[in-house]
Amino acid sequence: MKLIKGKEISELIKDEIAVRVKEHINAGGKVPHLAAVIVGNDPASETYVAHKVKACEKVGFRSSLIRIDENAQEQELLSRVEEINNDDSIDGLIVQLPLPDHMSEDKVIEKISHKKDVDGFHPVNVGRMVIGLPSYLPATPFGILELFRRSEIKTKGKHCVILGRSNIVGKPMAMLMSRKAEPGNCTVTMCHSSTENLAGICRTADIIISAMGTPGFVKADMVKEGAVVIDVGITRIKSDKTKSGWKLTGDVDFENVAPKCSYITPVPGGVGPMTIVSLLENTLKAAGKKIYF
Amino acid sequence: MKLIKGKEISELIKDEIAVRVKEHINAGGKVPHLAAVIVGNDPASETYVAHKVKACEKVGFRSSLIRIDENAQEQELLSRVEEINNDDSIDGLIVQLPLPDHMSEDKVIEKISHKKDVDGFHPVNVGRMVIGLPSYLPATPFGILELFRRSEIKTKGKHCVILGRSNIVGKPMAMLMSRKAEPGNCTVTMCHSSTENLAGICRTADIIISAMGTPGFVKADMVKEGAVVIDVGITRIKSDKTKSGWKLTGDVDFENVAPKCSYITPVPGGVGPMTIVSLLENTLKAAGKKIYF
Repeated sequence: MKLIKGKEISELIKDEIAVRVKEHINAGGKVPHLAAVIVGNDPASETYVAHKVKACEKVGFRSSLIRIDENAQEQELLSRVEEINNDDSIDGLIVQLPLPDHMSEDKVIEKISHKKDVDGFHPVNVGRMVIGLPSYLPATPFGILELFRRSEIKTKGKHCVILGRSNIVGKPMAMLMSRKAEPGNCTVTMCHSSTENLAGICRTADIIISAMGTPGFVKADMVKEGAVVIDVGITRIKSDKTKSGWKLTGDVDFENVAPKCSYITPVPGGVGPMTIVSLLENTLKAAGKKIYF
Repeated sequence: MKLIKGKEISELIKDEIAVRVKEHINAGGKVPHLAAVIVGNDPASETYVAHKVKACEKVGFRSSLIRIDENAQEQELLSRVEEINNDDSIDGLIVQLPLPDHMSEDKVIEKISHKKDVDGFHPVNVGRMVIGLPSYLPATPFGILELFRRSEIKTKGKHCVILGRSNIVGKPMAMLMSRKAEPGNCTVTMCHSSTENLAGICRTADIIISAMGTPGFVKADMVKEGAVVIDVGITRIKSDKTKSGWKLTGDVDFENVAPKCSYITPVPGGVGPMTIVSLLENTLKAAGKKIYF
C-alpha cells in the first residue's frame, strides 16, 4: 500500500508555482492577485480562507480579503462582486461558501465574471469543461487529477466509482475521469443516495473516489484488493484526543481499508491541501490570460 | 415487450404544442420564430433541416432557413449568427451540424447567444444543466427523458448504462439520468471506446442508452432479461430492399434484443422524432422567455 501524501505533493507544487510566478514577473507580468470574499464569521470558513491567503503569500501572489457582515443584504455582496469583476488589478475572485441562508449561492456564482472564476463554479466554466474547451477546472477534482499524475497512477480503461453527485466534486469528477485524456479514459459509475447495491458496485471498482461527507462510510468489505481509494470527505467530529476537542475525518474507514489498497489518500493531508493548489494554478492562469483574454 | 413508439408520441406532443402556441398567441404573445442555418448541401443535413422546418409549420411557428455556401469563410457564418442574435423577431437559432472542415463548430456554438441556443449546445446551457439551473436541455437527451415520462418508466435507483461520451448525447444524458429528479436518480455508468468488459457491464444494466453509432453493437447476450433499451444510433447503411438503396439502422440488434426487453425503442421511429420535439419545446420556451429574460 502506498500512501498518497497530498500535503507533501502540494508543498512541492507550491514551490514550482513560486518559481513560475517569478518567471512571469521577470517576463514583465504583474504580480497575480487573488481576492477572497468571506461573509460572516463561520469558523470553518475562516480557517479555509486563512489557508488560502497564506498559500498566496507563499507563492508570491498578492491577496485581498474582503469581509462582508453576516447580516448584510444579498445586494451588497453582489455589488462587491461586480466591483471586483471590473477591477483590472484583480485576476481571480472567490466567494467562500457556504453563504448565509438569505443569500443565493447560485446568484452569486453567476455574478462572478467567468474570467475571474478561479474556483471553476461558474456555468461557463462548468459547460466548457464538459464539452472539452479550456476552462478553470473546479478545485477539488483538478487537485485529484494532479494526485493521479504525480503518483503515476494509470487510469485508462479502469472502472472508477464516484460516491456523491455534488456540483463541486461528484459531477465534475465524473466528467473529468471519463473524458479522453490521461488521467481519464475511465469507465465511470456515479453513485448517490438513491443507489441500490452500492457496496456491490464499489467492490467492482479499480478506483473509488468518495465525496459523501459521511465518516466511515467506505468499509473494508466494499473495497477490492489493490484498489485506489481517494477520500474527499472532510467532516469535523468530536474527539477527546485533541486539544481543540474535535478532529477531521474522511469518508473512509482508513485503518481497515488501507491494507487492501494499492494507493490511498489520508484525511487530513490527502485531497484537502491539493484544493488550494488548484486555486493557485487557476489564479496564475488568470494572471497570464491563459484561458480567457 | 413494449415498443416505445417515439414517432406516435412525438405527433401527440406536437399537437399539444400547437395548442400551447395558440394559447400563447391568444394571450398576446407573438408567433414563435425559429431560424435554422445550413452550410452547404449535405443530403443528411438537408433532410434534418427540412424535417425541422416542417415541424415548425405543423405547430404554428414561423421558421426561417438561412443558407450559406459551403465555400464561404467562417467569418461569414459568424456574422450571420451575430445578426440573428441581435434580431428581436427571432426566438431560437440552430446551426445544422456538421460544418465543413474549415469552420470551427466550437466557435460557432459559442457565438450563438445562449438565450437563443435552443439546441442546448452552448457552454452556458450545458453548465447550467449540470449544476441544476434552468436551461435549454440538449435535444436528444431531453427527448429521451420525455420518452421515459410518457411511457411511465420508473428510473429511481435503477442502473443506467450509457454507451458513448459525445457532447450532444452521452455526457448530458449521464448528467440528467443521475440528477435528483424523475426521470433521473439512476446509478449511471458511462462506457466508451476505452471501456473494458463492456458486455459484462451492460448485462448488469436495468436501462441501456446506446449512442455509439455502430450498427448491431448491442447484442442479445449483452442485455439482461427485462431491461429497458434506448437506441440513439442512426447510421445509414446500404440496402437492396429499399428504393433509395439505403436504410437507417440503430446500434441495437433489434430482432434478437427486443424479445428480452421490457421496453425498447425502434430505429427509425424511436428517439429520432423526439429530438425535433425538444427543439420545438425549447423554442416555445424561448418565445415565452421562460428561461432567460
